[in-house]
Amino acid sequence: MDLVSYADIQRAASRLRGVAHLTPVLTSAQLNHISGAIVFLKCETFQRTGAFKFRGAYHAVSSLLERELVRETVTLSSGNHAQGLALACRLLGLKAHVVMHHPINQLKRRAVEAYGAVIHETRTRGEAEQRVQELMTALPSTHIHAFNDPRVIAGQGTVALELQEAIRNLDAILGPIGGGGLLSGTSIAAHAVNPDLKVYACEPTGALDAIYSIRENCVVPMANPQTMAEGLRTSLGDVTLPILREHLADVFPVEESEIVAAMRFAWERLKIVIEPSSAVVLAPLLRREAILEGKRVGVILTGGNVDLSAYFERLSTAGC
Amino acid sequence: MDLVSYADIQRAASRLRGVAHLTPVLTSAQLNHISGAIVFLKCETFQRTGAFKFRGAYHAVSSLLERELVRETVTLSSGNHAQGLALACRLLGLKAHVVMHHPINQLKRRAVEAYGAVIHETRTRGEAEQRVQELMTALPSTHIHAFNDPRVIAGQGTVALELQEAIRNLDAILGPIGGGGLLSGTSIAAHAVNPDLKVYACEPTGALDAIYSIRENCVVPMANPQTMAEGLRTSLGDVTLPILREHLADVFPVEESEIVAAMRFAWERLKIVIEPSSAVVLAPLLRREAILEGKRVGVILTGGNVDLSAYFERLSTAGC
Repeated sequence: MDLVSYADIQRAASRLRGVAHLTPVLTSAQLNHISGAIVFLKCETFQRTGAFKFRGAYHAVSSLLERELVRETVTLSSGNHAQGLALACRLLGLKAHVVMHHPINQLKRRAVEAYGAVIHETRTRGEAEQRVQELMTALPSTHIHAFNDPRVIAGQGTVALELQEAIRNLDAILGPIGGGGLLSGTSIAAHAVNPDLKVYACEPTGALDAIYSIRENCVVPMANPQTMAEGLRTSLGDVTLPILREHLADVFPVEESEIVAAMRFAWERLKIVIEPSSAVVLAPLLRREAILEGKRVGVILTGGNVDLSAYFERLSTAGC
Repeated sequence: MDLVSYADIQRAASRLRGVAHLTPVLTSAQLNHISGAIVFLKCETFQRTGAFKFRGAYHAVSSLLERELVRETVTLSSGNHAQGLALACRLLGLKAHVVMHHPINQLKRRAVEAYGAVIHETRTRGEAEQRVQELMTALPSTHIHAFNDPRVIAGQGTVALELQEAIRNLDAILGPIGGGGLLSGTSIAAHAVNPDLKVYACEPTGALDAIYSIRENCVVPMANPQTMAEGLRTSLGDVTLPILREHLADVFPVEESEIVAAMRFAWERLKIVIEPSSAVVLAPLLRREAILEGKRVGVILTGGNVDLSAYFERLSTAGC
């Protein structure tokens, strides 16, 4: 039996109604011209907490509360899931513990604190995983995994659900791949409506584990990721791998220089601040991937949490 | 008789349908919390050319074509009107001449060129005005003023028309003031629907001419503007002044430091790239103007054309 069904995603959508933003779908004549495709940008950058992750976190926590008496949650996250969980817990009256390991995006850290979560910092990912175990033992708490959790996946699937309600007859959907939570939910939502729709993952060449994991049908650990896309440094999980193997059409590898160029395109031309983990999805369009030409392509702009201190501190001192 | 009526704005809206983007209205729990108001952001940053100015320019040029055989247009603009006119002329098969004076925003200059307009550079505003006259004499052309033109004003009024269709029962609308074209159209559209709605202008303290022009009922020239908000350095015109005197509730002066803080808030929190001329409208909300507390406030985010070369060149060399 499938761990996540289309009905689960529909239930998640009704749970999120009035809580999560119904984010806009934007178009750009310029992007269409460059890519040769007809592109629809689903802007989760404008989601609460600045990223789609709020959807999965809120859905998971609210589902938990249906069945258990939970007062505290624990997670390990580079930032966006942490923010999503922190806000979800604040809204639902729970306490969130977030384990973060270095390097830490300070904007995301400050936001997690502002939402009232307790932050536990570690140096490495290994130490972070150990800290999660320690917290789980010490506290009467529940672990909300950032992606390897059917309730989280169902929540993330609501992005594609909304996109397909807004835009009919999509040929393809592009999303970034880290742990695979978003694209698992996306695939299930997309293929329930249209089994012929192609779902593509975009992965930094400096963290190219999903492509190998899917090919070899086992979770290839991401030992030493070298990418500015901090949200995409993780490996897949045992829940997401089989879903992705079943549903993904292909994975597009994306170079770091393409990530920078795509961020610049989004900021300068689209006027949308996207973070590196989100910029990967624009790269195949900007390099005009032949397989996307002439197609109606939905693109999930996943998040926009970028620390801009350096830019604005320079601007403040420069004057007019 | 009024030079611009609500019916003119409605006609402009039908002319712009399918040509201009119907831009989204976004909300932010954070901004509501900080301002104490209920804020609706009408995002003209996502308009074609990255600013609302496309509306007025397209409407003016297409109105001209109804009655005259025009092949060339001339304008003087710091950039956003120039981009709007250049794209409008390309779409309608005309040639645009744009006179720009220093300092010039290079992003806007490149965009104007990319839309196929001819650029004429001058050192000062005085020289630019003279060049417009020379071009008008030398060429069989029509001058499309950036704001002091009833057809342009009617086009800009469509922003408020759409905002009011999307959001009912607004108490106030905030917009930036340069030449007053946007707020003239906004006022007429707003007060036709609801005469009690308050329209507020936001003006940089380094270019504080509108507030004096309205008070003294004559166009006070903006001699030496000192603001990074390049779109707001101009004086009012004889068409916009009487409209604004009739309709504006008040003008909020905004400091340069507030412009920087508002830009940072928009980029970091709202994930929307706005330029300084647009950021002025967030300042009264971020400083929690008492008169806006508890009110339903529509805010026009007018444009997002910022040159980000320096930021991205640094990012490219820094690596991950």
